[in-house]
Amino acid sequence: MSEPAERMIAGAAEEKIMGLARSLYGQFQDGIVPHISLPTRTKANIEYDKDEEVWVYGSQETLRSVKTVRGAKSLLKTVHLADLLIKEHLRNNRGSTLREIYYISENWDIAKFNEQSESDRLIEDLEIVTSLQREDFHVRPEEDGAAIFGPLHIREKTRRGERDIHCQDEVGEAGYQIPFNVDNIEFLGCDAKMVMAVETGGMYARLIENGFDEEYDAILVHLKGQPARSTRRLIRRLNAELGLPVTVFTDGDPWSYRIFASVAYGAIKSAHLSEHLVTPTAKFLGVQPSDIVDYNLSTDKLTDKDLQALRSELSDPRFDSDYWKRQIQLQIDLKRKAEQQAFAGKGLDFVTKEYLPARLGELGLA
Amino acid sequence: MSEPAERMIAGAAEEKIMGLARSLYGQFQDGIVPHISLPTRTKANIEYDKDEEVWVYGSQETLRSVKTVRGAKSLLKTVHLADLLIKEHLRNNRGSTLREIYYISENWDIAKFNEQSESDRLIEDLEIVTSLQREDFHVRPEEDGAAIFGPLHIREKTRRGERDIHCQDEVGEAGYQIPFNVDNIEFLGCDAKMVMAVETGGMYARLIENGFDEEYDAILVHLKGQPARSTRRLIRRLNAELGLPVTVFTDGDPWSYRIFASVAYGAIKSAHLSEHLVTPTAKFLGVQPSDIVDYNLSTDKLTDKDLQALRSELSDPRFDSDYWKRQIQLQIDLKRKAEQQAFAGKGLDFVTKEYLPARLGELGLA
Repeated sequence: MSEPAERMIAGAAEEKIMGLARSLYGQFQDGIVPHISLPTRTKANIEYDKDEEVWVYGSQETLRSVKTVRGAKSLLKTVHLADLLIKEHLRNNRGSTLREIYYISENWDIAKFNEQSESDRLIEDLEIVTSLQREDFHVRPEEDGAAIFGPLHIREKTRRGERDIHCQDEVGEAGYQIPFNVDNIEFLGCDAKMVMAVETGGMYARLIENGFDEEYDAILVHLKGQPARSTRRLIRRLNAELGLPVTVFTDGDPWSYRIFASVAYGAIKSAHLSEHLVTPTAKFLGVQPSDIVDYNLSTDKLTDKDLQALRSELSDPRFDSDYWKRQIQLQIDLKRKAEQQAFAGKGLDFVTKEYLPARLGELGLA
Repeated sequence: MSEPAERMIAGAAEEKIMGLARSLYGQFQDGIVPHISLPTRTKANIEYDKDEEVWVYGSQETLRSVKTVRGAKSLLKTVHLADLLIKEHLRNNRGSTLREIYYISENWDIAKFNEQSESDRLIEDLEIVTSLQREDFHVRPEEDGAAIFGPLHIREKTRRGERDIHCQDEVGEAGYQIPFNVDNIEFLGCDAKMVMAVETGGMYARLIENGFDEEYDAILVHLKGQPARSTRRLIRRLNAELGLPVTVFTDGDPWSYRIFASVAYGAIKSAHLSEHLVTPTAKFLGVQPSDIVDYNLSTDKLTDKDLQALRSELSDPRFDSDYWKRQIQLQIDLKRKAEQQAFAGKGLDFVTKEYLPARLGELGLA
């Protein structure tokens, strides 16, 4: 992203936050009790948009008014937060972590946040009100650090200037570390035919060692378990802007299916950001419960928690398809789960020479 | 590391593993019951070497002999493992994760590992017998992914060839991702005066944003909580080979003091590798319990687990100094703990403009 482009975004973000301040100010002037209304962020008000295949908020709205002390305090905190983001972050091109913002509020007297969950929530409010992402306000998470490896040439706008990096030829064996704000990344060139998001570091390293990225022109994305926003945002951009098909390769257990779902359908917590974070066309590659049978993989017994999670997935709209109902039911019957690294039992090359080519063929990707 | 150099190491590793096989074979020929003896790896046989300031094994040895079925099985597994490492890993320049090795043993009939802890342990045995590191056998951990940022120019030997990377000018905002085997890294050049290892990603990002690495010629290492072996090994190499002083900046709680201790003194689990992983001259920078008072930091209450951990540290030889006894006792009295990001309550620049300069001054590093 070029300097001016960044200033534009910072300016737009400031404008939108100022808009909130102005509307509150206007309400004061017009003698209306100041308030803002937000979509109610409860499970009850989350709807699954069949067409868009993502989670969105329903029509329920919550009115946050200064009529009550609680509401007044909450709006006061929102205004303090807006002030911080405009004066400290956007105008000085600075940033803070979610945790730091909680600490910064110490100096806000009665507007001090009681706990971080409160400041996190207000930042989500600002995202909704401004229809921007917290990254646009230069707000960082605590930890991140997923990585990608593959035939992708990027330009990252950093505080130290622009960096052109080829994510296969100009990075170490561990790959290119994804920054917290991937919208600072510009795609310069791409020789990839697909994106494969991989749950575990062990499999990510296996695919790199076996040269899978070269043989299949694949960009490998290490999800590191439940993927961070930046990772999901990057996958979304690779799919939307470069038109690359996305596959997700995880362990074969209910928690891993949720990792896939967060990439493909989004999560309730970030329903207001689905358009930025979600890749509805992402395909689940495996490990499928049917693979446990077909490949006679070594497995572990399902725990009660696992079974519980599988049953709740049977009623989860994100898994409301014949494919998933069949697979999940099969796993409940098998009472077994398998890790993606279990393929090592068939030899170090089996996963890249046999399993993945077969699955990619079934998905029409190889 | 150059091609020949790498072949040499692979060759040396093979030689050392073959040595084990030969000695067992020789014992057969001489009609001696085959056995190997290893230092007993129990807390009771760990000694703290005051001079070297690291943990080392004591003189107790465990004899693993084929006299018993259990011993015979264990040696059989060791031989299978040695065979895998030589034929698959070293001769073909391949590698596996600890988890994959557990799965690979499926095909070893009665030598199959019952659980991963068993294969992990045998790999530690081989490290001890050969006095090499598992990385020399191309054995990887599951997850890794800590990062560094600073004035360091490195050359990493990867499977795709050598990569020259400047860890400040040629990386993204998130820094250079540390590979699992840092002995593939050659230091080409370094303008740094010190290494600062940082516990949290939030503070790591803060120091980069504030330009601390440039102002203090510091290489910033993100520890990501309890540091991985590769991270500790890299810190050790930066200290031993480049003569850089090392400081460790963590949260102010007993668990963070252990993070410092694992960098500076090593851990019981990896006592046989202390010489490779430990930086005895590393200095604890903070957050110190006394900082909670001196800087009036916002704090959280110590939990019972925290208090327990602090008390056990009072009897831990690694904390057997006036400095630590005073600090730990003070924290027990305060009953409070503070995070490194708490400095944000004093403003985004306080940590880099006030706190760190003051602490580095006290340590004679600025």
